[in-house]
Amino acid sequence: MKLQFAMDTLTTENALALAKAAAPHVDILELGTPLIKSEGLSAVTAIKNAHPDKIVFADLKTMDAGELEADIAFAAGADLVSVLGSAGDSTIVGAVKAAKKHGKGIVVDLIGVANKPARAQEVVALGVDFVEMHAGLDEQAEAGFTFSKLLRDGKESGVTFSVAGGINASTIASVQASGAAVAVAGGAIYGAPDVGAAAAELRSAIA
Amino acid sequence: MKLQFAMDTLTTENALALAKAAAPHVDILELGTPLIKSEGLSAVTAIKNAHPDKIVFADLKTMDAGELEADIAFAAGADLVSVLGSAGDSTIVGAVKAAKKHGKGIVVDLIGVANKPARAQEVVALGVDFVEMHAGLDEQAEAGFTFSKLLRDGKESGVTFSVAGGINASTIASVQASGAAVAVAGGAIYGAPDVGAAAAELRSAIA
Repeated sequence: MKLQFAMDTLTTENALALAKAAAPHVDILELGTPLIKSEGLSAVTAIKNAHPDKIVFADLKTMDAGELEADIAFAAGADLVSVLGSAGDSTIVGAVKAAKKHGKGIVVDLIGVANKPARAQEVVALGVDFVEMHAGLDEQAEAGFTFSKLLRDGKESGVTFSVAGGINASTIASVQASGAAVAVAGGAIYGAPDVGAAAAELRSAIA
Repeated sequence: MKLQFAMDTLTTENALALAKAAAPHVDILELGTPLIKSEGLSAVTAIKNAHPDKIVFADLKTMDAGELEADIAFAAGADLVSVLGSAGDSTIVGAVKAAKKHGKGIVVDLIGVANKPARAQEVVALGVDFVEMHAGLDEQAEAGFTFSKLLRDGKESGVTFSVAGGINASTIASVQASGAAVAVAGGAIYGAPDVGAAAAELRSAIA
């Protein structure tokens, strides 16, 4: 199972510092949506230039203009770009077209999708690399939230999936046990006093 | 009915040129999602600084972190910020909270939502200013697309709505007849040989 670090910050400078500290312990460096909206795609280029050996994930959460948005993100240095599962099929097909042109990949973020396993199967059939079983920051803050449903949805989907929803060192083993290909951690790393040590701890919890 | 110009371009420089040409004839200047992702929120600031008398709409299409994304866009100079109708209620509530703090407004973009009238009523009850009955660029390119369903959905919703889906000079009267508060035009203006003249023509078609 790969480890993805979701850098939920608002400046390229902070993202570069987070990436530098965590990079030795993670496989995928993710630029969060607010970071990209705040700084633009130059943030993607900066992270890729600093970490050419890492997979750089641009969390665009594209809802329209799939081919265009994916194309400019790949051109800026992204290896993976996200499209929303609630987007129309033509948007996802457009993004996949851009990914093929660049030799890169599309991830469909299933945040907000009610029947995640069914939509996961549909979008994988459209050519996306994998899906993200994702509960957003706002959903995680709701009373009674747990991400066990995400793990069940991932298993049920039968396709390659990542999980994102507040994963930490005490829960990452359950994510691996669910069969996830990628575990996405954000706050458990960037919110720790020692970012590098937190990333290393998550890495060591992966069997 | 107000006229909103959706500037679907990828550079702040182009957006400034488009805004300069169209501004005398439009009420709302919209920075499209790909423009914001490409250039960052500095594009919003540049447009607001150049056109302080216009309503500046940042088409963030927020799906998560509603309060944060709206807050940084308002701080950058936006007067209106969009959140997706497919986002969870807590995301919309967070964005509304940021709007109240800044004395600005939230628009919910109903792109991709199956039952637009029902969702429109729900989100207006959550405190958003109005909803956008929206067919995206990808949907507009699908065979057999017409936006008459958007007009029917707007009427049926019974709430304040805008319409976006390829409006041009020959269709804008039907949009006004539907009761829309705002008509959003993009390609009909920025794709014209004379951007100012195209905007003026749309304006003159509004009764």
